Amino acid sequence: MDMLWNGWGDPAKAAPLPDSVTGLLRDLLGVKPVTTPALGLDDLRLPGTTADPAALEALAEAVGGDHVRTDSESRIRHTRGKSTPDLLRMRAGDFSDVPQAVVLPASHDEVLAVLRVCAQHGLAVVPFGGGTSVVGGLAPRRAAFIALDLRRMNGMLELDPVSRTAVLQPGLRAPEAEALLAEHGFTLGHFPQSFEWATIGGFAAARSSGQASAGYGRFDEMVLGLTLATPEGTLETGRAPRSAAGPDLRQLILGSEGAFGVITAVVVRIRPLPEVRLYEGWRFASFEEGAAALRRLAQDGPRPTVLRLSDETETLIGLAQPDAIGGDLAQSEAGCLAIAGYEGTAEDTAQRREQAAAVLTACGGTLVGAEPGERWAHGRFSAPYLRDALLDVGAFAETLETATFWSRVPDLYTTVRTALTETLTEAGTPPLVMCHISHVYENGASLYFTVVSAQGEDPVAHWAPAKHAANEAVLAAGGTISHHHGVGIDHRDWYVREVGPLGVAALRAVKRCLDPEGLLNPGVLLPTD
Amino acid sequence: MDMLWNGWGDPAKAAPLPDSVTGLLRDLLGVKPVTTPALGLDDLRLPGTTADPAALEALAEAVGGDHVRTDSESRIRHTRGKSTPDLLRMRAGDFSDVPQAVVLPASHDEVLAVLRVCAQHGLAVVPFGGGTSVVGGLAPRRAAFIALDLRRMNGMLELDPVSRTAVLQPGLRAPEAEALLAEHGFTLGHFPQSFEWATIGGFAAARSSGQASAGYGRFDEMVLGLTLATPEGTLETGRAPRSAAGPDLRQLILGSEGAFGVITAVVVRIRPLPEVRLYEGWRFASFEEGAAALRRLAQDGPRPTVLRLSDETETLIGLAQPDAIGGDLAQSEAGCLAIAGYEGTAEDTAQRREQAAAVLTACGGTLVGAEPGERWAHGRFSAPYLRDALLDVGAFAETLETATFWSRVPDLYTTVRTALTETLTEAGTPPLVMCHISHVYENGASLYFTVVSAQGEDPVAHWAPAKHAANEAVLAAGGTISHHHGVGIDHRDWYVREVGPLGVAALRAVKRCLDPEGLLNPGVLLPTD
Repeated sequence: MDMLWNGWGDPAKAAPLPDSVTGLLRDLLGVKPVTTPALGLDDLRLPGTTADPAALEALAEAVGGDHVRTDSESRIRHTRGKSTPDLLRMRAGDFSDVPQAVVLPASHDEVLAVLRVCAQHGLAVVPFGGGTSVVGGLAPRRAAFIALDLRRMNGMLELDPVSRTAVLQPGLRAPEAEALLAEHGFTLGHFPQSFEWATIGGFAAARSSGQASAGYGRFDEMVLGLTLATPEGTLETGRAPRSAAGPDLRQLILGSEGAFGVITAVVVRIRPLPEVRLYEGWRFASFEEGAAALRRLAQDGPRPTVLRLSDETETLIGLAQPDAIGGDLAQSEAGCLAIAGYEGTAEDTAQRREQAAAVLTACGGTLVGAEPGERWAHGRFSAPYLRDALLDVGAFAETLETATFWSRVPDLYTTVRTALTETLTEAGTPPLVMCHISHVYENGASLYFTVVSAQGEDPVAHWAPAKHAANEAVLAAGGTISHHHGVGIDHRDWYVREVGPLGVAALRAVKRCLDPEGLLNPGVLLPTD
Repeated sequence: MDMLWNGWGDPAKAAPLPDSVTGLLRDLLGVKPVTTPALGLDDLRLPGTTADPAALEALAEAVGGDHVRTDSESRIRHTRGKSTPDLLRMRAGDFSDVPQAVVLPASHDEVLAVLRVCAQHGLAVVPFGGGTSVVGGLAPRRAAFIALDLRRMNGMLELDPVSRTAVLQPGLRAPEAEALLAEHGFTLGHFPQSFEWATIGGFAAARSSGQASAGYGRFDEMVLGLTLATPEGTLETGRAPRSAAGPDLRQLILGSEGAFGVITAVVVRIRPLPEVRLYEGWRFASFEEGAAALRRLAQDGPRPTVLRLSDETETLIGLAQPDAIGGDLAQSEAGCLAIAGYEGTAEDTAQRREQAAAVLTACGGTLVGAEPGERWAHGRFSAPYLRDALLDVGAFAETLETATFWSRVPDLYTTVRTALTETLTEAGTPPLVMCHISHVYENGASLYFTVVSAQGEDPVAHWAPAKHAANEAVLAAGGTISHHHGVGIDHRDWYVREVGPLGVAALRAVKRCLDPEGLLNPGVLLPTD
């Protein structure tokens, strides 16, 4: 099934907001109803492809005629990703970032062949997995480009139960990968919010991090090997789980966002399917107290599989448990809600749960019980649907995220929150800014912010200064410009500052080596000149 | 104190072999006594430096006259590393790899200044930490080079107890680093065999792995940030513990072995000093059975802090417990000795020990008790002294190591062992080949081989075909050319095959960007043209 072209996910799962929330948005944030009628796919008049017919013919030779598509619907469905500005542009019928064709290769060799054709014809190439980028990763700075949709490369090539590794193709969606592994009793354990749509190749290209990262690790920690198709040939990495044979080239490809090549196979670490999955809610008096408790567990253990903490605002609004949104606010207790989840064998989860509970209690936490945990688990992939519903009623909703070392977390939290609040308030749309700690490490944590406000006259333009201020705040407070969303176009100028001129020069040297004509996702990750 | 110029460590700690071992070497391996008298430092006649006096003057301006040394002793003490061929060449008075000067900068800025001078004068630069490379990492392919000794940069610049991070200078030796951290109740937990001499910068540059890696991780996993001085300026990496902001540049510098720049600061993860350190011996009927037990713990836990397993030969010879070497062989029981060690809080170590013991027992292991564990711990840094004693009596002794995924471990073990045994037997010096699993991961393990034989007429030349055959065997069996020793000059040609032409091209592109004139460790890691 294809994802909704101008929103998130399965159109059948869309649900309007309860009237209570609509009223709240109106009264609290001054949200005004949208008056422009929504566009349907059939309303759109997309100009025909400008791609050279000779190029299209050569592409058809490479992958078969059925797998080169220039029809409007295919091109529209491969336009941009799923950031809020992306959705707003789609809703407005702005197709300035549309690909000239969609090409669907079936193998590594077909990808190499496509890259050769594109080099000959000067066509840029955007690798396309689930299309869930929220940082402009699918909108290159080049007029003529093709979307290289990897959905036909969706198999499991190998499974080694002794080494606990599997070789997965890039176009495999996460639920498909889990289903294939589950047949053998294994799981990846990678559950980002984009889980239902995102692909293995996209996880690797964008350094994805899932909600169970405390237990299963980030996706970049799961990757043991990679095969990359580039205009200059094939690069294979990962002969051993760990090595002292030089720099780790896997870590150069992870996070390269399609700018260095097309990932055509990923060797991943797999784990036994858990016998038990258990999620519980804890309440802390303040975000500071809760953060200290999370740090204790991240540093001294035992480590839950899922560990997250909402700040006071997010707890109050109920976003911590998306299913509860629109509930009676007055009933919310004060403080901050944390979710601690345990997955594994019955024995291991029972032991970790007992010991973690002792630590959380000692740190001031109160066990709320299983209900908030189950509600979080049930709604864990539903926030993007909620965003669509908010946009439908004239609200603006977007998320952004960062990470830093523990000692800098409080300052990063305050600085970003203040930047967002002040910028949007000055623009006449005072926002709700919510935050949670989404991922914990021994040495630091990530902060995930959700902003809801009225849209303003031109919602894309209205948001831009706030996003700019947030990015500046992230750098000023010592955070990284992205903990798990990636760089894309949207974060690129701050990424360049984060990495510094010599780091950018080194990355450009790699890009010139692998992609000398600059065909791959031009302008994404690195500036084009 | 300086290390022995033609051997390992502190000359005062040298100890001759017991007569029983000498007899064994003679009877079992045909080792003949060395008849050439040993050279002393004073016997050596080193030609004067060929470095341009203008270059030396400019270097003196950069770091101060006292810190540019061209005397024979300084130059000899910075010649090569500590592989067995290195020691044999030193013992033979071969100083073909001697630096033209030794330069000791005191700061990042002085390193940058030295690099500028060297660029102007066409002098190559070899970053020098503890001088413990065993892969030819200090012998570049360039006639005129300086050794850049980082010993004056040996401070702790920052300690953040909340984030559990410290910023260490590169010339800090591991025991000095541990002492500085211990004042604040912390440890790195990095204890490679070179611990007593090696430096923080060297650990990072060569992707070192310590004996307690099962608990504390590899050094590359401890590094959160790096500062690199290059001929093109400064590169700083690591704004957050984890990030999705592009490729991980830390992992491009780790393992770069001085070929991309000089590491001038390392941000490391630190942990609380353990309350308890406990090491025990376990016996398994076979290497296969023991390996299966280690895999169980590595994959399903609980993870000991130290976990290693000697094969039958190593167990029999007693090398598993270096203090026991030369003991009564007849007293050795059959089978394979494993060491499982636990470090941490009293509660945590007791729990992990109990649970790990249940797993090891279920896998066929028999607890031997604390004695072999304590003997291992006591002798854990002494093997290189033993090698000197073996060389003194005319034996040859060398080590090499690799890693692979668990399912390939048996084949890698057999292939490398056979290659070493056959090559040296054909050359008339049938060897003892011993092996242990030195490091374990969820998805694989490392194999560490020790070879002892008679020296042959020209011991360096005699060893070369065996090392060549071992390297070929490693690649043929799917292993990495080095798990923790690094690439240097000795593994370079195999490394190039492991990484493949496009991987090498990408690394060369990075080197050209950071070191356009190819001054840094030329020929180490990557070929010079």
